Amino acid sequence: MPAETLEELVSLCKRRGFIFSGSDIYGGLQGTYDYGPLGVELKNNLKAAWWKAMVYERDDMEGLDSSILTHRLVLHYSGHEATFSDPLVDNRISKKRYRLDHLLKEQTPGVLEAVAGAMGLSEVSLAALVARMLAEPERAASAMNAAGVVDPADGARGDWTPPRPFNMMFRTQIGPVADEESFGYLRPETAQGIFINFKNILDATSRRLPFGVAQIGKAFRNEITPRNFIFRVREFEQMEIEYFVKPGTDEEWHQRWLEIRLAWWEAQGIPREQIQVLDVPKEDLSHYSKRTFDLMYNFPTLGFEEIEGIANRSDYDLGSHTKGQSGLRIQARVMENRHSTARLAVQDPETKEWFVPFVIEPSAGVDRGVLAILSQAYTKERLPNGEERVVLRLKPHLAPIKVAVIPLAKNKEEITAYARRLKAELQALGLGRVFYEDTGNIGKAYRRHDEVGTPFCVTVDYDTIGKSQSGSPALKDTVTVRDRDTMQQERVAVSELAAYLQERLRF
Amino acid sequence: MPAETLEELVSLCKRRGFIFSGSDIYGGLQGTYDYGPLGVELKNNLKAAWWKAMVYERDDMEGLDSSILTHRLVLHYSGHEATFSDPLVDNRISKKRYRLDHLLKEQTPGVLEAVAGAMGLSEVSLAALVARMLAEPERAASAMNAAGVVDPADGARGDWTPPRPFNMMFRTQIGPVADEESFGYLRPETAQGIFINFKNILDATSRRLPFGVAQIGKAFRNEITPRNFIFRVREFEQMEIEYFVKPGTDEEWHQRWLEIRLAWWEAQGIPREQIQVLDVPKEDLSHYSKRTFDLMYNFPTLGFEEIEGIANRSDYDLGSHTKGQSGLRIQARVMENRHSTARLAVQDPETKEWFVPFVIEPSAGVDRGVLAILSQAYTKERLPNGEERVVLRLKPHLAPIKVAVIPLAKNKEEITAYARRLKAELQALGLGRVFYEDTGNIGKAYRRHDEVGTPFCVTVDYDTIGKSQSGSPALKDTVTVRDRDTMQQERVAVSELAAYLQERLRF
Repeated sequence: MPAETLEELVSLCKRRGFIFSGSDIYGGLQGTYDYGPLGVELKNNLKAAWWKAMVYERDDMEGLDSSILTHRLVLHYSGHEATFSDPLVDNRISKKRYRLDHLLKEQTPGVLEAVAGAMGLSEVSLAALVARMLAEPERAASAMNAAGVVDPADGARGDWTPPRPFNMMFRTQIGPVADEESFGYLRPETAQGIFINFKNILDATSRRLPFGVAQIGKAFRNEITPRNFIFRVREFEQMEIEYFVKPGTDEEWHQRWLEIRLAWWEAQGIPREQIQVLDVPKEDLSHYSKRTFDLMYNFPTLGFEEIEGIANRSDYDLGSHTKGQSGLRIQARVMENRHSTARLAVQDPETKEWFVPFVIEPSAGVDRGVLAILSQAYTKERLPNGEERVVLRLKPHLAPIKVAVIPLAKNKEEITAYARRLKAELQALGLGRVFYEDTGNIGKAYRRHDEVGTPFCVTVDYDTIGKSQSGSPALKDTVTVRDRDTMQQERVAVSELAAYLQERLRF
Repeated sequence: MPAETLEELVSLCKRRGFIFSGSDIYGGLQGTYDYGPLGVELKNNLKAAWWKAMVYERDDMEGLDSSILTHRLVLHYSGHEATFSDPLVDNRISKKRYRLDHLLKEQTPGVLEAVAGAMGLSEVSLAALVARMLAEPERAASAMNAAGVVDPADGARGDWTPPRPFNMMFRTQIGPVADEESFGYLRPETAQGIFINFKNILDATSRRLPFGVAQIGKAFRNEITPRNFIFRVREFEQMEIEYFVKPGTDEEWHQRWLEIRLAWWEAQGIPREQIQVLDVPKEDLSHYSKRTFDLMYNFPTLGFEEIEGIANRSDYDLGSHTKGQSGLRIQARVMENRHSTARLAVQDPETKEWFVPFVIEPSAGVDRGVLAILSQAYTKERLPNGEERVVLRLKPHLAPIKVAVIPLAKNKEEITAYARRLKAELQALGLGRVFYEDTGNIGKAYRRHDEVGTPFCVTVDYDTIGKSQSGSPALKDTVTVRDRDTMQQERVAVSELAAYLQERLRF
């Protein structure tokens, strides 16, 4: 049974060192988070699982790690300068700013209907309403004020300004000269780094269609109202694939990638039935998209929200960034490119004609993935003895700590030395983090490792060193291995421990 | 024998897909680079080797991954707002801007002496000269103009402005309100994220001194003149440890960390004798440093330049960011902190007194590490047959591709199917990237994999499938394994191949 509320996750994350607020000691920097000792392991494990499945285990994929600072022309021709914005509205009374669609969502149905009616819409589709309001901002302000749209901050009716688009890209001056030319953007998606390197990668690898390029990295969006913990933030990480295919095969590949990605999420512990696939309605599509599937995970508190978008970006991106557009019969509507120095196209081996590949883009959020996985793994159990335990039922390959090695007596040098040696040996297996656990008593240690998802606890005791009062001498060089999920303990010979753990932790 | 020039590395990197210029197709964005298919593997392998040695194999370390966007108060109290600047000077004739120390370095000794003399200095220490020039900027401008300091862009005497400090931090507006309060910085070092999380980490882990926190991540510096490929860039990656110790034990720990880090670089293929340890002179120390060792690698073309700094930061950082400074007997000179909400101190278990730990900081550059490792591994060899080969003698754990599986005949379905199956099996061993290589002939494939450092090439041929004209039936289910360094080929049974490779690639 997954977590019931976001709050219990937030609390666990802070207490046990998964996730902290960014710039915490100075009151926080809204929309930024820091991954603590356990969070960084979970996140890295998730990224490694993606890279393994999407790059290593396929023969049609290359990796990339492009820079965050991006030339403004990249984001100009990508369409982000013109269209990557959210609708912003101010309350003149409270001086608060809101993202218009978020504000409207928090109104009563009656108020919402009144606004829609005043805008000349009979049905209330939020996307359509927001589009209409941005097209007629003065009328929208009157509609909101007449309908009595309230400010969520104080619950009082606001005095609303006409809504306007707010570009979500962070810009910064680059170089020592402060003029209108010398700035760049923090990339709003990792995707563009792939598109602009298309020719570099082709030249270096001799790939032929279909093939993909995979990238994991930070992206930045100046959200008007970041919220819901690590769900909607200003700095986040993406795992993106741009998969290049021949035009005409794009729809089939789009479906295939949907299946591949659903299977991958399942392997990370997110069951198929916890995900709704949203076939994004035409009017909600991004400017580059021919069709998009959103994978919506059923989050506690939030309900179904996107963890991955799988878009058919058509030939929009390569077509936008290529030189010599006119000779390439680009299907998407693209801006005329007067700056690009590279032809981002391939030659048909038979007809010898140059054409621009279509792109299928499975784009997953790392942070949203972490949140979904934590939500799904979080379990509160009532034990037979009446006690309650919290256990993170993480897939072993995602667990921040794979094995905790616990010396039963902390002051007994023979036991601690044995335990340290064993920890080092297990660490050398390359399974991930092995933890030498010498805080608190054994029961507390077990409970603490249940709560952070450690699959196995290995305890070194007097029997292990052959000095038990009551135990059998046969127990020398054996340890207790406790399983997180079953809570069962088994006595295992140290000589067999590596194989025992490898079998159960192998990914 | 390492590379002789930076140029041959730059060329290899672009051609084979290690490293490309950032925003390449729009003329490049100075000081940014993109890691291509092989570069991303090399870089990730280097980071993984660091994390393994510095976090997993120690019992006194925790990991962290903090955000890049940083509250301005963090960089205010850290001292970066006031002091993290480079000296900037303009040539009024050419309109070019230079970093003063870089400009001075490119002058003839005579000119340099004349400038120093005019500033009242008898000896020319660059750091001292620059400091004096910033302290008396008008006099400095006269000195430069009188001495005839030339502009490296055109070789002509410049008309120089008084030098002034240029802050190297990138700033950006955060949130929808554009006022003087609503901005933050891109972190100029990952270190600050560790200091401000000191209490969060302590609370979550119950650590006691000495212990460290390790972090890998991007940092950003608005260099006036980025140059020398990935050596001096505006966006780069760091691997930083902040190791917290009891005051009084700091000097001993400083020495210990120097040895630990030198040994680690040696394990990455950088021999001890290629590194000079610079005991940074007092006048060149950063504002936070009590003492710093710089590890200087002997780069081709550049000569000895820093790949890692190991600083004794004293109690400056925690002392700067803590609340309740006055009760903590902080030794470093710190600004009064009126904003921090956390006590960044620990309690002496015996005296019960609260004190601020000292910090030893081994801070390595990922990109500089990659460049050093490439430089060191790059080898041009004359073969017995008179041909020349380029081979990257990378440590196997750093090689972008561990094994290339090559089907001898690309059109023979039995061979390609066997090779694909074998590739998948070897990939599942978890050794890193295994590559299915079916471009070009076998000789070219070997040479290409030498050039990118692939330790082993495995060839599937007619013998493997038991259909050789001349071979022995005993060769069925055997493959040819070729060693990158010796170029020797061995026939290995497929049933023994996993063990063969694991033994040689195990890290």
